[in-house]
Amino acid sequence: MSTPRPGSAAAVLGTTGNGVEHLPYGSFTVGSAPPRLGVRLGDNVLDVGTVLALAGDDVSATAREAVDSPSLDGLLACPKAVWDEVRDTLQETLQNAADTDSIVALAVPVAEATLGLPFTVADYVDFYGNEFHARNVGRIFRPHTEPLTPNWKHLPIGYHGRSGTIAPSGTDFPRPQGIRAEPEGAPGFGPSRRLDIEAEVGFVLGSPVPGGRVPIAEAEQHIFGLTLTNDWSARDIQSFEYVPLGPNLGKSFRTTISPWVTPLAALAEARVAPPPRDTPLSTYLDDSDTDPWSFDLQIEIALNGEVVAVAPFAETYWTAAQMLAHMTVNGADLRAGDFFAGGTVSGPARNQRGSFLEICWGGSEPLTLKDGSEFTFLRDGDEVSMRATAPGPGGSVIALGECTGRVLPPVTG
Amino acid sequence: MSTPRPGSAAAVLGTTGNGVEHLPYGSFTVGSAPPRLGVRLGDNVLDVGTVLALAGDDVSATAREAVDSPSLDGLLACPKAVWDEVRDTLQETLQNAADTDSIVALAVPVAEATLGLPFTVADYVDFYGNEFHARNVGRIFRPHTEPLTPNWKHLPIGYHGRSGTIAPSGTDFPRPQGIRAEPEGAPGFGPSRRLDIEAEVGFVLGSPVPGGRVPIAEAEQHIFGLTLTNDWSARDIQSFEYVPLGPNLGKSFRTTISPWVTPLAALAEARVAPPPRDTPLSTYLDDSDTDPWSFDLQIEIALNGEVVAVAPFAETYWTAAQMLAHMTVNGADLRAGDFFAGGTVSGPARNQRGSFLEICWGGSEPLTLKDGSEFTFLRDGDEVSMRATAPGPGGSVIALGECTGRVLPPVTG
Repeated sequence: MSTPRPGSAAAVLGTTGNGVEHLPYGSFTVGSAPPRLGVRLGDNVLDVGTVLALAGDDVSATAREAVDSPSLDGLLACPKAVWDEVRDTLQETLQNAADTDSIVALAVPVAEATLGLPFTVADYVDFYGNEFHARNVGRIFRPHTEPLTPNWKHLPIGYHGRSGTIAPSGTDFPRPQGIRAEPEGAPGFGPSRRLDIEAEVGFVLGSPVPGGRVPIAEAEQHIFGLTLTNDWSARDIQSFEYVPLGPNLGKSFRTTISPWVTPLAALAEARVAPPPRDTPLSTYLDDSDTDPWSFDLQIEIALNGEVVAVAPFAETYWTAAQMLAHMTVNGADLRAGDFFAGGTVSGPARNQRGSFLEICWGGSEPLTLKDGSEFTFLRDGDEVSMRATAPGPGGSVIALGECTGRVLPPVTG
Repeated sequence: MSTPRPGSAAAVLGTTGNGVEHLPYGSFTVGSAPPRLGVRLGDNVLDVGTVLALAGDDVSATAREAVDSPSLDGLLACPKAVWDEVRDTLQETLQNAADTDSIVALAVPVAEATLGLPFTVADYVDFYGNEFHARNVGRIFRPHTEPLTPNWKHLPIGYHGRSGTIAPSGTDFPRPQGIRAEPEGAPGFGPSRRLDIEAEVGFVLGSPVPGGRVPIAEAEQHIFGLTLTNDWSARDIQSFEYVPLGPNLGKSFRTTISPWVTPLAALAEARVAPPPRDTPLSTYLDDSDTDPWSFDLQIEIALNGEVVAVAPFAETYWTAAQMLAHMTVNGADLRAGDFFAGGTVSGPARNQRGSFLEICWGGSEPLTLKDGSEFTFLRDGDEVSMRATAPGPGGSVIALGECTGRVLPPVTG
């Protein structure tokens, strides 16, 4: 698959990172046309329904109807067999030299398209699944206690975030305001002074399960794909509000995701084992008899274009399959469009940490940028961009869609 | 309004609690027909679009389109002026004796209709706004510390719940399972042993505000109406998981709401002042120069038909307007269908508490039921039903829609 058939659209349009072995999905519009489900090939986006039509009568009516949609919503409502049929058909068609002219004619340069949210977000759960991150945050926020809470190794801790403020890459947002923890005295209201990022991997779910209870072994039937996620966080607001019911205003103002969802199927070569576990697990979380999978994904974090960290997703302690098993074990329904993120990705080294809170240790260890200035938390105008690559089949590369956002000045008054 | 015009549909169909001064909305189906937005009058439901059509050309096209919907979704997307137009027109038409025969002919007995969710839930925030409840829970869960956390009087604490498991009254559910706090030793997995209720009032939001920031004075432009809410809680699962990110599995399995949304406009006579405040507030939460409003709503909680408590909503410390101002002050978008609940309603007396955790003090003070048995937490087969009444205009009564659910045995294996 890594060497596209000569003369095919895959050969003509594909690029490193976005070849025919990748094919992430998004929702795109051109001009005033209504949004459509698109698939990316190289620097182009193709209408999935139109490409599928080239494949003729072999495509099932279910698949055709599922992709006749403004976004992934139609496909997420279907079982995995339909996801596979659509992807297989796209790969075959894009490799078929007889279709090249038709496909090239309908290719829209990504730069000319407007990319929306790739799916309608149902519920959003944000986990806290990386042990380096959890220990760092524990040490910074609760310096006089054991950094990991007693539950941490028994279950993947998570909370529900705000679905309605998830936005695609490129949606800038004003600095949030709120009631902030102050070093001394009564809490104060104002724009956050400790605005931060969280570099995460998000998982897009489909094939609904009323009544929940998705076992680890069935995770692949429901995890459609991955998207880079930045769970922007106002640390001063969060630290004042979060006891006892968890983060709310410190997170709910904005979460940015890539406009492209990389299918799970594209990441078969990127699978690696998660870190070793050191605590016995309840049966529904115990994957010791299975072949647990994480991903070799390196998330590059750039501040105004300067790379400040590369966070290794494979260091995440809990796997996506465990998180999905956990969030449904109580009988909670799984809906198409449910979304969860695995938690801030950090590794052991300073330049592997996925938040400025950790990189700059709560503000006490500023980062020296290339221009010589010192940095701790985000300033108005700062832009943060995340990219990631993973190994693809036959030595190819899978480049996850970029996840970028800029902090605008606060809206006051 | 409390004495309906003789011979009008309001006089023929209206009942105490569901007269023409109330008119709650719901989503109803009859047989295999598609769901439609309905309005309740007495023990009947009427198709809103059909009633509005009787009013003729005076109704705006916007209003007609908004109610031509399977639920409240169309109306919630509109500004308050449209909400008022629809309600005023319904009240006039139902009082018009010339329309009585037409209206009686289309009345469907509630008992013959299937009632769905009255709106599509966007984001769901559950607050913790009642001081009696927060102090009781603090004493029970954290007995060696100050019961109210330091932030409690500075902001309405809340967290995001799971929208996808909100279900209308009558949706029974299996006892949830999860990892439970155990009195001694390692945590154990199994069906919850401490399954509880939370009697709450929910607020349905509309008239979207991208960028959030809804001031207290504008709350009435966005709070469409109220619905009784039971935020079922598995206390043993919750108490193990909730540090540091708040409740998740202990709550996410099910939340029950009434299928009827009582318009805010129906509760004008029920307004009362909230409890006195004793802590200075940030400007966006400070309502001391306004005329803050809560509601004289008494929530009757019945266990298998036996009333065990009557919880007074007016004891809630934070008002709905403050909660809405808080959840949007950071710039979080308000969407049509967003929903928040004000927190478990408790009063000072034992029989005014809105959860069994509080009534039975963490299990240490069982309730003696009428049959002589002792009760602490919910058993398989138990049914909990909540009702509430509030004063309406001219001595009438507003009866909020019932909120009922039954615990089924756990699904194991």
